[in-house]
Amino acid sequence: MKLLPAAACALLSICSAVSSARADPASVRLGAEKHYEQHARELLAEFSSLLALPNHADNRAEMERNLVALEAALRKRGLAARRLEAPGAVPSLLGELPGTPGRPTLIWYAHYDGQPVGSSGWNTSPFEPMLDRGGEKVRLAEAVPTLANPDDDWRIYARSASDDKAPIIALLAALDYLKASGTPLAVNLKVFLEGEEEIGSPNLAAIVRAHADALTADLLLFADGPRHQSGRPQVVLGVRGTQGVELTLFGPVRALHSGHYGNWAPNPAARLSEVLASIRAPDGTVKIAGYYDAFDRDLAGRGVVADEKVEAKLRQELRLGARENESRSLAAAVTWPAVNIVGLKSGDTGANARNAIPVEAVASLDFRLVPDQTPAIVRGLLERHLRSLGYRIVSTRAETDAATDRERVALLDWGDAGYAGVRVRDDQPQVRGLIDLLRQLHGEQLVVTPILGGSLPLSIFTENARLGAIVVLPIVNYDNNQHAPNENVTLGSLRHGIGTFAAVLAGLQPVK
Amino acid sequence: MKLLPAAACALLSICSAVSSARADPASVRLGAEKHYEQHARELLAEFSSLLALPNHADNRAEMERNLVALEAALRKRGLAARRLEAPGAVPSLLGELPGTPGRPTLIWYAHYDGQPVGSSGWNTSPFEPMLDRGGEKVRLAEAVPTLANPDDDWRIYARSASDDKAPIIALLAALDYLKASGTPLAVNLKVFLEGEEEIGSPNLAAIVRAHADALTADLLLFADGPRHQSGRPQVVLGVRGTQGVELTLFGPVRALHSGHYGNWAPNPAARLSEVLASIRAPDGTVKIAGYYDAFDRDLAGRGVVADEKVEAKLRQELRLGARENESRSLAAAVTWPAVNIVGLKSGDTGANARNAIPVEAVASLDFRLVPDQTPAIVRGLLERHLRSLGYRIVSTRAETDAATDRERVALLDWGDAGYAGVRVRDDQPQVRGLIDLLRQLHGEQLVVTPILGGSLPLSIFTENARLGAIVVLPIVNYDNNQHAPNENVTLGSLRHGIGTFAAVLAGLQPVK
Repeated sequence: MKLLPAAACALLSICSAVSSARADPASVRLGAEKHYEQHARELLAEFSSLLALPNHADNRAEMERNLVALEAALRKRGLAARRLEAPGAVPSLLGELPGTPGRPTLIWYAHYDGQPVGSSGWNTSPFEPMLDRGGEKVRLAEAVPTLANPDDDWRIYARSASDDKAPIIALLAALDYLKASGTPLAVNLKVFLEGEEEIGSPNLAAIVRAHADALTADLLLFADGPRHQSGRPQVVLGVRGTQGVELTLFGPVRALHSGHYGNWAPNPAARLSEVLASIRAPDGTVKIAGYYDAFDRDLAGRGVVADEKVEAKLRQELRLGARENESRSLAAAVTWPAVNIVGLKSGDTGANARNAIPVEAVASLDFRLVPDQTPAIVRGLLERHLRSLGYRIVSTRAETDAATDRERVALLDWGDAGYAGVRVRDDQPQVRGLIDLLRQLHGEQLVVTPILGGSLPLSIFTENARLGAIVVLPIVNYDNNQHAPNENVTLGSLRHGIGTFAAVLAGLQPVK
Repeated sequence: MKLLPAAACALLSICSAVSSARADPASVRLGAEKHYEQHARELLAEFSSLLALPNHADNRAEMERNLVALEAALRKRGLAARRLEAPGAVPSLLGELPGTPGRPTLIWYAHYDGQPVGSSGWNTSPFEPMLDRGGEKVRLAEAVPTLANPDDDWRIYARSASDDKAPIIALLAALDYLKASGTPLAVNLKVFLEGEEEIGSPNLAAIVRAHADALTADLLLFADGPRHQSGRPQVVLGVRGTQGVELTLFGPVRALHSGHYGNWAPNPAARLSEVLASIRAPDGTVKIAGYYDAFDRDLAGRGVVADEKVEAKLRQELRLGARENESRSLAAAVTWPAVNIVGLKSGDTGANARNAIPVEAVASLDFRLVPDQTPAIVRGLLERHLRSLGYRIVSTRAETDAATDRERVALLDWGDAGYAGVRVRDDQPQVRGLIDLLRQLHGEQLVVTPILGGSLPLSIFTENARLGAIVVLPIVNYDNNQHAPNENVTLGSLRHGIGTFAAVLAGLQPVK
């Protein structure tokens, strides 16, 4: 949380510049949405091509194809596009419209990489975008030429459909409208597209530091994340941080017959279960000593918009009878620090199950951090916890291979460094200005959420660039299956995003 | 434990019959082993062909190919071979040599199905048998034509190499020697080959009941299982029973972003960890209420041969610093009832891990039962335990799909029925006779083990056929990776089995 205080804004010459004439945000929104309806074929054809490109950050060839497509898309809208590089990093892409003195600078952020597709669960191929027209699924590319009257409830299925290529296509459409209608932008726009968000933004800090001058701005807008579970538009003033880890425990060096050796040889699957149960209570409470030390409980749940009806509907939809912790609403729950188990693997199950003691057991954990809780703190706490259970921490397979007491070894793979959470002060003028504009668009429908359950690398920007403020403005439907099989986005989300982004670009007030 | 008392043996006319002249067991053993050395090429060629046949009991086409090969192998040795069938069952195979009045009847049991090969971990293809000649691995089929001086330490790698095709090939070789040398059998031999042992012998009871007359015998010899961990020959007077189960717990109906919903939606991987930790203590103690009620603790560890040196060597080899329960030797540990976790699966791990709450979590459990503890008792206890934790037991996916509170549902798939454990009284004359014969072969090296950690369907025979006694006589190396990747058998085990089986067939004393 190293946001520039409002006073420091004076350092940025643009802050106090004179504003130019600005269009009425509500009119711009309506115009942009209408423009989308009239040009849906071209836009969805472009979206389809973009979604057909696999985009896992570990695959450089895939990412290169995405970069080339996005550079072309930005240049088509008149933006100068250049790659921001760092050693070993998938490049970020920076697009800039020619600046006009006196306008505030807005950096608009999205990421172009996607989550792994996983091993199963997809109903259609993740990189063959499908259009679901109320139950009838057709290839998006084949549907486009004859597409008419796009319905808000239709959905496009593909990896990254919502997370995070939908905001990118919506921004491009907003720019198309502003250009076509001759509506001037109220801001100097820079578009920042990251290529490693879904693997934890391991090189974002290096990239931001290396290009800090180009990334100085009055406001950085994160277009990632979903709208509120009620379907209402939301603006978000903070995020939880994140740190992933893969924990592996070990049994015998070779799998052993579970009858002859089963309750003699230490069982890594059983030990992993014990360790996980020691880390996390049934209600989700983290049992690692000290985990809540950096947490200001007074802030837990403060300012959140909990909607029991929406939550009940969501539970019904998800077929859940109960919350994990009955005393906390969804909105309140995600303001707490947490640990999730996102994967377990040991031996085999189902038709492949064998009566054998496995050689190892793996859990993929996902820590969610509140503001002021850093990845380093969490790493230290988990290691201390495991040591208190009698484990010796190692970080390489080689160390395990050398061990003569494999049952005492805990292999921790922290993967890429995580990042801290951020809470944005809502008394900053840039933040107030944006909220005011969104209220003009959405009235009381707008949900102002103090902290998002999901993680976005806001802290990397606040710690490494000179920013007036940073805010999250998500546009996609909440039920988008992001990070899961069958990721999707509704056409209504696209329309919403196009209207919202056009209104912000044309209507944002400069800081007085 | 429904063994016929020794008195009931009078019912079996053969019991009291006059014996014929019998060869000296030690001489027969030496002769048979020498015959093996001279004919190793033919024998290993036959073994190689048999091992090349995949043999998972769920695959009828695979099992048919094994049946055809085994029928031919038995007939080649002069045995009448017929299939013993039951509705829905993979047939068992019964081979009979022409009987001679006055000789005791011996049923020799092995199984011809194998464990699933699992999803990973094999260094070579499970059904392309490989010969490891002290580090140099060659295809067995290619090595056979020029094979000379087979070394006892060489190993054959393939699924079922040890479990349980090695005993079958050893018996065939023993019969070859007896025929070639003109040594008369001291028993009327019936060979029983089961095709569903590794899936829990679901139809064995039906088969045995349907053919109870043909399965009446003075002694049933199970040739399954490994020799003692010290490498010493062993005879085993009991087995633990078995019952497998697959337990699935559920989360939301679709995978959810772990940031936005992670500590709100119940996490099935976390719940499974909690449940497993509630079932099993870190020292392997089963925490399910009532689990030890049917267990006679006075019998735990009684009569076992514990060898600290052998165990220390084994731990070193397996790279384990400690036992699961430090107070119990390996030999003692497996006389206790137990539960093993043999598989875990939820979400994805490693490169496929996604930051998502999984929709379900699965554990494969393997209960090991002591004598008098039945599968029905264990099933009831686990269900009661899960109910006490607040779960509703269902047995089909359809019931889960209908649930509006998936987080409270526990899906139990008991698979095929398990079977009870057996403890054989060592004061029975048939048992004493066999042990005396083995002592002539092995002297003080022979380990008489009261109960085997592994499970064999002895109880199915004792409950459904008229048997004088039942004993386990294993021949394969203990470090055979049975039920695991890289299953193997040493050539020394084959030699040992051939000599032992020949000596038993030619030298077993009739019951006086």
